[in-house]
Amino acid sequence: MPSVDICFSPELLPLYNLQGRVAVVVDILRATSSMVTALAQGVTYLVPHSELDPCRAMAAEGYLTAAERDGVQADGVDLGNSPFGYLDGVVPVRGRAVAITTTNGTRALHLSAAAEHVVVGAFLNLGAVAEFLRQQQRDVVVVCAGWKGMFCLEDTLFGGALAARLAPGFDTTSSDATLAALDLWQAASSNVAGYLLKSAHVRRLNHLEAHKDMEFCVRQDVYDLVPVFRNGKIIVAQ
Amino acid sequence: MPSVDICFSPELLPLYNLQGRVAVVVDILRATSSMVTALAQGVTYLVPHSELDPCRAMAAEGYLTAAERDGVQADGVDLGNSPFGYLDGVVPVRGRAVAITTTNGTRALHLSAAAEHVVVGAFLNLGAVAEFLRQQQRDVVVVCAGWKGMFCLEDTLFGGALAARLAPGFDTTSSDATLAALDLWQAASSNVAGYLLKSAHVRRLNHLEAHKDMEFCVRQDVYDLVPVFRNGKIIVAQ
Repeated sequence: MPSVDICFSPELLPLYNLQGRVAVVVDILRATSSMVTALAQGVTYLVPHSELDPCRAMAAEGYLTAAERDGVQADGVDLGNSPFGYLDGVVPVRGRAVAITTTNGTRALHLSAAAEHVVVGAFLNLGAVAEFLRQQQRDVVVVCAGWKGMFCLEDTLFGGALAARLAPGFDTTSSDATLAALDLWQAASSNVAGYLLKSAHVRRLNHLEAHKDMEFCVRQDVYDLVPVFRNGKIIVAQ
Repeated sequence: MPSVDICFSPELLPLYNLQGRVAVVVDILRATSSMVTALAQGVTYLVPHSELDPCRAMAAEGYLTAAERDGVQADGVDLGNSPFGYLDGVVPVRGRAVAITTTNGTRALHLSAAAEHVVVGAFLNLGAVAEFLRQQQRDVVVVCAGWKGMFCLEDTLFGGALAARLAPGFDTTSSDATLAALDLWQAASSNVAGYLLKSAHVRRLNHLEAHKDMEFCVRQDVYDLVPVFRNGKIIVAQ
């Protein structure tokens, strides 16, 4: 039976063997939630960048550019990191490619490249990711982007929610991280947004737009698609 | 108000600023539980070693030697890593110094040396550690030894239990790790041993002696002493 493990920080990834496994990279607030939303709104693909300047330079090649630093849209780019940037129609996104850089999510994607598949996970596409993993029948490692390398609640809750969806067809009891995430998910699942209001990260983003984003980002199964990171691009899995 | 943060793995310690703070190093199964027990039974001090051979060599200098690798007593030493080694009278320990090496705990101690004080924490001395921290009035970082660098439930539960004891005089809400540990502690506290039976680490040690150790190691407030790591030695704080 394939297993589900959870890596709470990209800094811990060297301890995990990703070879032959599926890595599910998650940065609920907000990188992976926005990537899923972007593809659902007709963005053709995304190119994640670790650094801001190379990302910004992609505008000259016809890309839309999206970037945040410390939770705020960076200067000189088309979009921030809010999923609503792909929904509100201010910047037309359908048919465009997007170069994106974020504080935590991009780093987690690049560090996961050794996996057989690197999937972009969010609550927004939770069911689609679970179905993809059931089809793959490979061991799963959920890679939490965290907050500047540290443990964060929202990515952990996603890990717990995914493990809960995959049980009992997957082994969710051989990793203490997965056991903890399942218990935290049980405590939070009846009101995820309410639970996250106590999170240090969410309180750090304590303003109206951030709360609106957070409430959107914890909605489950809004989009039925699975983005994968392959050859430097995030595309919808065939 | 001083704060309580929790570092789930020594691998994450570079992200934490220990300067001016108190580090509480914890390796419930079983290094720090055994260290507390050793000092309570009259061991004068302990010298933690990262490597087995230098530890074993300390026998020539009159030390008792204690070592485990992968949960089993190492060859050619006096004691393993069970707290009962200091309790069962087979090896007289009163008045002796002990050279000790363990898989995870020693590493966590050495990596925490930048802190103002490095305290050895366990459920066995939970109340004494909490009282010491209240007297210090400094920010606290609980350093979980983990299992080979990975997250483990028992050390996390200790972090939650300590945070619960320190609230409301300490800020226990500014770190997602502390919030998670508090929720896990709430789920586990009515039956800690029962809760840990599901832990991957505990099941790995699934034999009679290990269960006896585990049930002892989760008992709270058995010993009223606070070991500190100072100048390479673990001694009882004056």
